Amino acid sequence: MTRRVLKFGGTSVGDLDRIAHVAGLVEADAAEGGGRAVVVSAMAGETDRLIGLTRAIAADSRVDVADEYDAVVAVGEQVAAGLLAMALRARGLRARSWTGAQAGLITDGPHAAARIAAWDAGAVGAAVDGGEIAVVAGFQGATRDGRISTLGRGGSDVTAVALAAALGAERCDVYTDVDGVYTTDPRIEARARRLDRISYEEMLEMASLGAKVMQTRSIELAMAHKVPVRVLSSLAGPGDDNPGTLICEEDAIMEKRIVSGVAYARDEALVSVLGLPNDPDRLAGVFARLGDAGINLDMIVHGRARTPHAVNVAFSVGRADLDRALALIDGAKAELGFELTETRTDLSKVSVVGVGMRSHASVAKVMFGALAEKGVGVDAVTTSEIKISALIPDDHTELAVRALHAAYGLDAA
Amino acid sequence: MTRRVLKFGGTSVGDLDRIAHVAGLVEADAAEGGGRAVVVSAMAGETDRLIGLTRAIAADSRVDVADEYDAVVAVGEQVAAGLLAMALRARGLRARSWTGAQAGLITDGPHAAARIAAWDAGAVGAAVDGGEIAVVAGFQGATRDGRISTLGRGGSDVTAVALAAALGAERCDVYTDVDGVYTTDPRIEARARRLDRISYEEMLEMASLGAKVMQTRSIELAMAHKVPVRVLSSLAGPGDDNPGTLICEEDAIMEKRIVSGVAYARDEALVSVLGLPNDPDRLAGVFARLGDAGINLDMIVHGRARTPHAVNVAFSVGRADLDRALALIDGAKAELGFELTETRTDLSKVSVVGVGMRSHASVAKVMFGALAEKGVGVDAVTTSEIKISALIPDDHTELAVRALHAAYGLDAA
Repeated sequence: MTRRVLKFGGTSVGDLDRIAHVAGLVEADAAEGGGRAVVVSAMAGETDRLIGLTRAIAADSRVDVADEYDAVVAVGEQVAAGLLAMALRARGLRARSWTGAQAGLITDGPHAAARIAAWDAGAVGAAVDGGEIAVVAGFQGATRDGRISTLGRGGSDVTAVALAAALGAERCDVYTDVDGVYTTDPRIEARARRLDRISYEEMLEMASLGAKVMQTRSIELAMAHKVPVRVLSSLAGPGDDNPGTLICEEDAIMEKRIVSGVAYARDEALVSVLGLPNDPDRLAGVFARLGDAGINLDMIVHGRARTPHAVNVAFSVGRADLDRALALIDGAKAELGFELTETRTDLSKVSVVGVGMRSHASVAKVMFGALAEKGVGVDAVTTSEIKISALIPDDHTELAVRALHAAYGLDAA
Repeated sequence: MTRRVLKFGGTSVGDLDRIAHVAGLVEADAAEGGGRAVVVSAMAGETDRLIGLTRAIAADSRVDVADEYDAVVAVGEQVAAGLLAMALRARGLRARSWTGAQAGLITDGPHAAARIAAWDAGAVGAAVDGGEIAVVAGFQGATRDGRISTLGRGGSDVTAVALAAALGAERCDVYTDVDGVYTTDPRIEARARRLDRISYEEMLEMASLGAKVMQTRSIELAMAHKVPVRVLSSLAGPGDDNPGTLICEEDAIMEKRIVSGVAYARDEALVSVLGLPNDPDRLAGVFARLGDAGINLDMIVHGRARTPHAVNVAFSVGRADLDRALALIDGAKAELGFELTETRTDLSKVSVVGVGMRSHASVAKVMFGALAEKGVGVDAVTTSEIKISALIPDDHTELAVRALHAAYGLDAA
């Protein structure tokens, strides 16, 4: 029997009316035949309320209470799953709720940020094949010794994709508050188009570049297990046209595009280390300090300094990491031997993403041409096999996004 | 190693300050040595909030959702247990929370009103013996096939007593908003005294007569398993004198009293069936109809009617059952052949309870003497081995309670 997994986030089950609406969507989908498992998040706001209780009672961060945090916070999804199962029964469907532990999701790693170690989905699979809709509490599982554990941010999406993999489902449908993945942010470019399909690799780049449809962790999992994921609207009615966007293997995309989308990320910062002695150990020392502190670098610019035997090196970090990065570098000034640091915080990153880049050398030329034509200055550039990113002044973000969207022919007719 | 079970109700863990206070009480108790398990209810108001959600989503009572109701409602205790475990760790104690299912409580019977079928307390016992305080979510367990189930009203007290039995605990301490069991309601008689000890049988009678310290279900369980239960105040501080009242076997009470307490119940009603043909089948027909409908009768008065070959029979019921009882009887008037029914709703029941009655014939004499002296008329009487109850006009309730309290020498010096 074909199986399918549906996933609904916290806003989609935010109140009792929304839960009843979700039951209608599930009913319509189940009417297509085959088994159905549904993964739900906690009702919007509920997880924050529970976290607030745990923070207030255990204010001393030196005491390890992560396992109890998990036991408390996991109930949000348990309640949503129970209520949705009720709403499905009210429609005459057979359904039951499962906690993550009951559903067989086994975790390892630290509490509150656990990883999925295994999923023994035999019981859920049997229920689903027997025609009962399995409503599974997302975001949670149990350790091998039976303690409740949670998966951290984006944990319900990860749960849904992992369940789809464990069940051998034909697809995982992620219902959300947007109706699919767009060529760029429709709030910036009204001519943005919904993509029918996008490859895992492209979606990964889009997500890491700030397109917030799904977190990279879930997409990586889907890619590893070859689970097709469809992103579609939870606001549409049960009978509405709601095709969404299918995230799938590149081979499954018939119409190849050179560029699939234009993404952007604000809140970039650039740190320049000027007059660093031209010595590989010093340079490595800069990056080792940042790496050890878990600070992700994105772009690196490296060039000769004005003084002899010295270089200038600049790197971009998220603005949230700026103070920490700067303190690390400035704190090691004597050892590293550089002259001074400079920072800029008025920067954004715009990126074009597309698997077609692999075979089209002209992509970079089009990008820089389009930006130059609009007078957008580029401070740094980084590329991957399927992405080119440019660091630009942040007041040019919208202008650059629109220019690139048009230059690659993405504008809707 | 000696083990002890402590239980805290919803008011005692009603907010985060109260939970922190409870942690202090547990710490002080644990300092006496031995293993400790703590059973908690949901934070006050939380269960009602959860029930409200389930009622709103599954308004059609013809759809059976009791299992999902349980999955939703049980989270209240799970949260309280997690928060208390955190509060204990904040004090430097070793503690962890257990859901009912994790703790090994196995239920049968209907969802939302399950019975405890068995308790596999091996894991909790091992944890407790290892010096870790086990904080167990009350009111819940799991069915043999792993579904969450709840125990219905008074379920957390039942959980605590059952856990004490399963652990072979020396005692179960029930912390509540009163500091023990009193000879009568202190709001009516200021000279009421806290009892140091009371037998299970007496406590059962007191509870069924309206003394609301513990429900009869928990006391019956404690009596069956010979678990001493101490009722004491959750409002007292960790170092305060807080002996409470020990509910225990009659043999463990040194100082025997003839009467241990005076209880009362308002909201009694009396239904008189007048002119019923004097025929055992007709009489049985009256009580069969009430019994089949699950209406508990208390006192029955039976006497000759004015008409020949006819009797009058009167019975008392709780006022909440009056309309239903009357409809049943009046609806069968043709078959039963009585003349008419009459009802009174201005009645209370006062009762004296004491194991010493078994050997003291004068108890009834003292009771009727004391009531007569105050001019309290008695409409009906019922007795058990350790209890005499009288139905009286409800505006005489306080007067009667005080008169009986004094007549049996219960007034504090």
